[in-house]
Amino acid sequence: MIELDFPKQGGLVTAVAQDADTGDVLMVAYMNEEAWRHTLATGKATYWSRSRSKLWVKGESSGNTQEVKEICVDCDDDTVLLKVVQHGGAACHEGYRSCFFRKVSGEELEVVGERLFDPKEVYGK
Amino acid sequence: MIELDFPKQGGLVTAVAQDADTGDVLMVAYMNEEAWRHTLATGKATYWSRSRSKLWVKGESSGNTQEVKEICVDCDDDTVLLKVVQHGGAACHEGYRSCFFRKVSGEELEVVGERLFDPKEVYGK
Repeated sequence: MIELDFPKQGGLVTAVAQDADTGDVLMVAYMNEEAWRHTLATGKATYWSRSRSKLWVKGESSGNTQEVKEICVDCDDDTVLLKVVQHGGAACHEGYRSCFFRKVSGEELEVVGERLFDPKEVYGK
Repeated sequence: MIELDFPKQGGLVTAVAQDADTGDVLMVAYMNEEAWRHTLATGKATYWSRSRSKLWVKGESSGNTQEVKEICVDCDDDTVLLKVVQHGGAACHEGYRSCFFRKVSGEELEVVGERLFDPKEVYGK
């Protein structure tokens, strides 16, 4: 079992999910030790939802799971990089491939990502 | 001025630095509002050092500055993605190109990154 530095950030490590093929950064989330163990055991990216205070197997609602191909750990043991296959195409709950679908353009944020699904149809809200 | 959600994480947003050319994820750090404004104003990646509790213009000690080419903001406004040119080649204080120089290999971490400098020679410790 690979030990990470969970105490440093109050029980959580930061997790970056990157598309294993294109290198696009898809999202950033957090893992507690249970989520880390679940990710290692299942090969499905699993996070700790800070807003819902529960284990979050990514894609359990939307079907957009993340199949983990490789995991790298940073020099401080407090951040992990998951190289994933993003099933369903979209990592973002707003229907975009990446959560980073807006870029800074002068004083504004410009939408640069393509919307792959309508969140109302997937989450019914 | 683009407003981020600093209150959500106690005054900090998470920042991922990605090589603008190769797509390699180089490091993850944190920004307070001052660091964010400094990054926008100067085009040099600037973080808040949590360990030293001070503004941290990346590379001010080592010369390995990060020239920001593009900034994306995530759907929650609490994480930014910086696409950078990593001057000096190495983002990691341990002398590797990326802080994510170790990958999970069974029960172990295997070093997969190439060391570009000896930290003792750069930081004198």
